[in-house]
Amino acid sequence: MSARTETVPEITAYRSVPEFARGRIKDIRVRWALEEIGQLYRTRLIGGIFGEKAPAYLADQPFGQVPVYKEGDLTLFETGSILIHIGEADERLLPRDAKGRGRAISWMIAALNSVEPMIQTLVVLTVKGQGTDWLAGAIEAAKPFAEERLSRLSQALGDRDWLEDHFSIGDIVMADVLRNASAELLAPHSNLTAYVARGKDRPAFQKAMAAHLADCTVGEPLPA
Amino acid sequence: MSARTETVPEITAYRSVPEFARGRIKDIRVRWALEEIGQLYRTRLIGGIFGEKAPAYLADQPFGQVPVYKEGDLTLFETGSILIHIGEADERLLPRDAKGRGRAISWMIAALNSVEPMIQTLVVLTVKGQGTDWLAGAIEAAKPFAEERLSRLSQALGDRDWLEDHFSIGDIVMADVLRNASAELLAPHSNLTAYVARGKDRPAFQKAMAAHLADCTVGEPLPA
Repeated sequence: MSARTETVPEITAYRSVPEFARGRIKDIRVRWALEEIGQLYRTRLIGGIFGEKAPAYLADQPFGQVPVYKEGDLTLFETGSILIHIGEADERLLPRDAKGRGRAISWMIAALNSVEPMIQTLVVLTVKGQGTDWLAGAIEAAKPFAEERLSRLSQALGDRDWLEDHFSIGDIVMADVLRNASAELLAPHSNLTAYVARGKDRPAFQKAMAAHLADCTVGEPLPA
Repeated sequence: MSARTETVPEITAYRSVPEFARGRIKDIRVRWALEEIGQLYRTRLIGGIFGEKAPAYLADQPFGQVPVYKEGDLTLFETGSILIHIGEADERLLPRDAKGRGRAISWMIAALNSVEPMIQTLVVLTVKGQGTDWLAGAIEAAKPFAEERLSRLSQALGDRDWLEDHFSIGDIVMADVLRNASAELLAPHSNLTAYVARGKDRPAFQKAMAAHLADCTVGEPLPA
């Protein structure tokens, strides 16, 4: 059924982050995928989001982010790339037929490039703009882009459980992206709210989140 | 050398867009990849960015964007997904060995999720905020995120021609993402400026852009 790797893979994660970021870091997506297929993994902790990164770390992850994924002599960065690799070894995450595989990867990239950026813009403006006189205007300008994407997504999902007939890496990323959207953004779309809840109900998500929270403390200060 | 497909693929593109968007639509990335490997393709034009999309179109592309890619009975959406598919047929775009393939896909996803969103946020705020009293504050808050990613990218690229030893789908997306960054953002990094110029100098890019411009007129009004 699954082609489980003999080599136990290693991922990196942050040891400490600011409060708003705990539970919202991308190692969760990779832990989730690995838990879905029962793949053991090791975690290597590095400082925090804003701390200096060692040159050796930047050689593996040019942007200093987490996770880096190592399996034997293979090193990958970016969760999307890591999830394609993990999925290719197990059809519970990524169908083997060209059509099913294509749809799952298309959805995953859609989550990363057509949905997450619009949601992330609102998060960044909200965090950086607290108490400023520009926040309301900027949010009003940026919010329609996120709303439009969520409306389209809600329409595409309809009353299905997952984006396609079967759960895939597309759902891991999309559900995690939506999990970080504000309740206000999701409120008009009860099917998206239910979709996020369905993702969070999966035992693999819960194990992934528990492992993330056990590794990652609150403590890193925000940069000046 | 290359496993060229017998079926001529079809992509969708916009017939008409607002002035700021012409030359900056994502069909260019797919045309570029196809030109790099000498793959003929057909173009199917649809209305514009903001126009209503037919239900049949939304079934292929849930967000109503371009391009949709069709090859035989395979339909893909999202340029990242399409480029992986095109690359898998030709090692001039995507190495076949696991390491090279992994790095190329990691870079492509980095362009889509770790670089483009930060640049796109500045574009959106600038377009929507012209003449408002909130624009300067919002740009000041959002710009450091884009600057940090470009600094990291510049450091990773160093004095190489491409992100890895050989040109790949990672370079197609990264160079096109940077092409849409402001001159001010790129100015501190002469290697990134040269990297974009190197991408634009490739005959395949020039053919792709010419075909895009021939198909896509300026005319669609901005939504109210």
